[in-house]
Amino acid sequence: MKRKKFALLGGDLRTLAAGKFLFEKGFDIYVFGFEKSDKNDFLKTAKTLENALSGADYALLPLPLSSDGKTLRAPFGKEEILLSDIFLAADAKTVFFGGNIPENIKDGAHTFVDYFKREDFQIMNAVPTAEGAIAEAIKETEFTLWKSRCLVIGFGRIGKILALKLKALGADVTVSARKEKDLAMISALGMNAVRSEKLGGVIFEQDIVFNTVPVLLIGEKELSEARKNTLFIDLSSKPGGIDFELAKKAGLKVLWLLSLPGKTAPETAGKIIADTVINILEGGFENDG
Amino acid sequence: MKRKKFALLGGDLRTLAAGKFLFEKGFDIYVFGFEKSDKNDFLKTAKTLENALSGADYALLPLPLSSDGKTLRAPFGKEEILLSDIFLAADAKTVFFGGNIPENIKDGAHTFVDYFKREDFQIMNAVPTAEGAIAEAIKETEFTLWKSRCLVIGFGRIGKILALKLKALGADVTVSARKEKDLAMISALGMNAVRSEKLGGVIFEQDIVFNTVPVLLIGEKELSEARKNTLFIDLSSKPGGIDFELAKKAGLKVLWLLSLPGKTAPETAGKIIADTVINILEGGFENDG
Amino acid sequence: MKRKKFALLGGDLRTLAAGKFLFEKGFDIYVFGFEKSDKNDFLKTAKTLENALSGADYALLPLPLSSDGKTLRAPFGKEEILLSDIFLAADAKTVFFGGNIPENIKDGAHTFVDYFKREDFQIMNAVPTAEGAIAEAIKETEFTLWKSRCLVIGFGRIGKILALKLKALGADVTVSARKEKDLAMISALGMNAVRSEKLGGVIFEQDIVFNTVPVLLIGEKELSEARKNTLFIDLSSKPGGIDFELAKKAGLKVLWLLSLPGKTAPETAGKIIADTVINILEGGFENDG
Amino acid sequence: MKRKKFALLGGDLRTLAAGKFLFEKGFDIYVFGFEKSDKNDFLKTAKTLENALSGADYALLPLPLSSDGKTLRAPFGKEEILLSDIFLAADAKTVFFGGNIPENIKDGAHTFVDYFKREDFQIMNAVPTAEGAIAEAIKETEFTLWKSRCLVIGFGRIGKILALKLKALGADVTVSARKEKDLAMISALGMNAVRSEKLGGVIFEQDIVFNTVPVLLIGEKELSEARKNTLFIDLSSKPGGIDFELAKKAGLKVLWLLSLPGKTAPETAGKIIADTVINILEGGFENDG
Repeated sequence: MKRKKFALLGGDLRTLAAGKFLFEKGFDIYVFGFEKSDKNDFLKTAKTLENALSGADYALLPLPLSSDGKTLRAPFGKEEILLSDIFLAADAKTVFFGGNIPENIKDGAHTFVDYFKREDFQIMNAVPTAEGAIAEAIKETEFTLWKSRCLVIGFGRIGKILALKLKALGADVTVSARKEKDLAMISALGMNAVRSEKLGGVIFEQDIVFNTVPVLLIGEKELSEARKNTLFIDLSSKPGGIDFELAKKAGLKVLWLLSLPGKTAPETAGKIIADTVINILEGGFENDG
Repeated sequence: MKRKKFALLGGDLRTLAAGKFLFEKGFDIYVFGFEKSDKNDFLKTAKTLENALSGADYALLPLPLSSDGKTLRAPFGKEEILLSDIFLAADAKTVFFGGNIPENIKDGAHTFVDYFKREDFQIMNAVPTAEGAIAEAIKETEFTLWKSRCLVIGFGRIGKILALKLKALGADVTVSARKEKDLAMISALGMNAVRSEKLGGVIFEQDIVFNTVPVLLIGEKELSEARKNTLFIDLSSKPGGIDFELAKKAGLKVLWLLSLPGKTAPETAGKIIADTVINILEGGFENDG
Repeated sequence: MKRKKFALLGGDLRTLAAGKFLFEKGFDIYVFGFEKSDKNDFLKTAKTLENALSGADYALLPLPLSSDGKTLRAPFGKEEILLSDIFLAADAKTVFFGGNIPENIKDGAHTFVDYFKREDFQIMNAVPTAEGAIAEAIKETEFTLWKSRCLVIGFGRIGKILALKLKALGADVTVSARKEKDLAMISALGMNAVRSEKLGGVIFEQDIVFNTVPVLLIGEKELSEARKNTLFIDLSSKPGGIDFELAKKAGLKVLWLLSLPGKTAPETAGKIIADTVINILEGGFENDG
Repeated sequence: MKRKKFALLGGDLRTLAAGKFLFEKGFDIYVFGFEKSDKNDFLKTAKTLENALSGADYALLPLPLSSDGKTLRAPFGKEEILLSDIFLAADAKTVFFGGNIPENIKDGAHTFVDYFKREDFQIMNAVPTAEGAIAEAIKETEFTLWKSRCLVIGFGRIGKILALKLKALGADVTVSARKEKDLAMISALGMNAVRSEKLGGVIFEQDIVFNTVPVLLIGEKELSEARKNTLFIDLSSKPGGIDFELAKKAGLKVLWLLSLPGKTAPETAGKIIADTVINILEGGFENDG
């Protein structure tokens, strides 16, 4: 059977890693926009954008897609790639995979599939996020995680995986959640459970506070109760869950860590993108465009 | 403040354990139906049913409630207690807590609250269930759980907790699930994930198969692929997930383990009932009657 | 190359399991003394003792070797096998492997190697011992191991492995030891450490006490401090570490569990014997005879 | 009872942290050599060296003691402190605690106790060492520890604790050791065991190699088998276990991480010093001088 053609356009190490895993899964890979990188020693390089896209069944767009809304994010490319040129060069049949694809760039002519919205992608991404947070916590404190008291705010994907890893490293872990069933599961897994509305009462005892909820939960009242040497790490996307300005004024140390997977583990992050794309292809998909 | 009165009617060791924890939480406890037990050395015994229920704010019914539909299950009581007598003796205000309360016994005059339907109850109960299953698995096999290959069917409450405990004991654990997000979480937690529809393909490699899903998933095809020395443990309620008759015919060893919490850890099971009742009282409740 | 001949004489399921693994490692196996068992469907059966031993490079003796000092322990054999007949039938070159071989049965003519004295054997055996103890602890208490307080006396092979497994199951584990370095390691591994001489002070708080030290550490003083519902499990060989008689008099529940590997996991126990024999053959050995 | 006087001389944050914990244990603390630090807001500052040492029962020397062999290492002190002045100022009774105290500085007049040689100190120190190594491994690789293949060379204090932490984070861990009993324990703890002399055969499969043995085990042969993207982390003291020069020439990435506790967790490192000093005082000590 003929191998399906997959174009990889721009992006960073994650794109190359995704390409490697897609290649292993049997796709015919064409890379464009990596001319200046010396890391691509195993994937076919397309000479031109047309070359990459001609007859392509699928194309992978970078994460994030663009920093100016007009050109593709391609830090290792030798020339600018206009988004509009991409869609012109592509066949009608080409399906575009991307993460957080802005609505306004979607032309009516192609199918767009957003892997970033997939729950399996988000869960797999929680692992490098948790590892990145742990590495920072080790480096940015003057004590060990072992025997430290850690509060994880939120028991979603990242909260669950981060809390279990902290526990595995010997921390005394408390997790906050709203639902009774989550509180029961936190306790069943051997951690301390606290209701979200009672966060204030436990902040004082913590050595490190990790927030995973994108809602302001650590405001004036909670910050006023914090000890000076408690480290706050915010892993939630904008607007974040910790009042950054207030915390700074109060002399507290706050790290706002975003996009950890691409930073601490681009290869794994790329593999996760490839895995999700394959899950999507196996399960069928709709046009998000 | 006046202590609230809580009547405990019939039941087994779980009832007494629940009473102990409710007493510690500040309730005034009256027990009825434990005359023949020598375990009740800390709770007030009511002389009569009326005595127990008069002025009671709450009453706890046993699990299961009755074996004949007419009398209360009270194996340690010295005389029969008619269900109808209970509701006649109770004040209008008395709220009845019970597990799996049959619809037909609910009179229109009282409030009935079923803790068995609560997700926090079910999750906490998953811990003694998992421990009971582990004890059986150790005893009923000729090998160790350590380095054994275990399949857990289903990643719900019991599946999650059981799988993590097996992994913690050194087993090589595979978990089946239907949803992509569950498969991703299983993998993120360091276990092998398999899609429910591909169960057949992994049965052959297993030393122990634990089912937690109350749907027939292990039928003729799956059983035909099983090795003779694989142990099957079914933890799901009726109708169970393993074709018991076929398995027996095929000479396979199947254990169908029901109601493990009450059997392997009645004290913890009682504490879980008390915890759930308190969660319910704190969170407010509706009449299930 | 010619396969080495290995005779398996008497014993129980462990012998057959050891034979299976030795066979997989390339030995030519002859079994004698299993005529009444229906479990041997993969190993060659010798018709006579001579047949089994003629030209044998190695022979495996059962554990224990004999219950009367004269005949081989062979519960599945159809006739009595005299120890003296074995050594008469064996070639001069045959090396005998056994566990706890009594000095007086060793004839001067053969090499005897005792696997029971090997530390690798003892460590691997600690796994089924710990699992057996855990299964009993789950079954014999009315509460879960999860959130129970467990004391493990001794941080040797069994103590180490048992304590880590209990911790993995969610127990609050305290381990006693004499040496500072052991106490430090216990703490580094996330458990509570207590000096052996201060055992008395922590007994009262425990739900389960596991002893692994073959020295009387739990005597009158310690037992007088125990709660009535604390379960004592003694895993140490004679004379044991708990004053059994005193404990009984005090109405305490004590389980003395011996030889757990052969009981709870004979197949694994047999594999461990085979693994140790192979370690011995690879590393060279001396005559223990 | 009169509180014992403890002088803290020079050093870094570890000294202050040790002082905090010794203070909590009831010692009367005098600090000298921290004039330029703003971190000491809870310990008494001595105006002069004489002031600090006069009547002192104990004194704590920094780790390392000196960088030139003549003056005390006191990066936060405002003036040079001559070692010879210290011993002149001290009472005859003053006992000096230090780590790695060079023989030549010990005068005949005082008692010197080296906490660095204590096994409990070394074991507790293995925890911050392992955490520091883990943080580096996360940061310096492009993949996650989860599902990575990690080789830990050596099953001593650091090897044991590091390997278990890597396993807890989801890595596929192999540990090398020389003794059969260590190999058995590695396997019992659920990790892959490899004999030290067969290291070469497993290097190729690894994503990260951690060395903990201060003997050159990774030389020309082993390095020639390594993949280009394998990260080597050497945690062993001089001369280290990896041929640094050869590795560099071969284009391999090697990190040689020394003195991690003081770098990644000075507060915990200080507490460990204090704990060890207290263990020493409780257990009695000899003059190492």
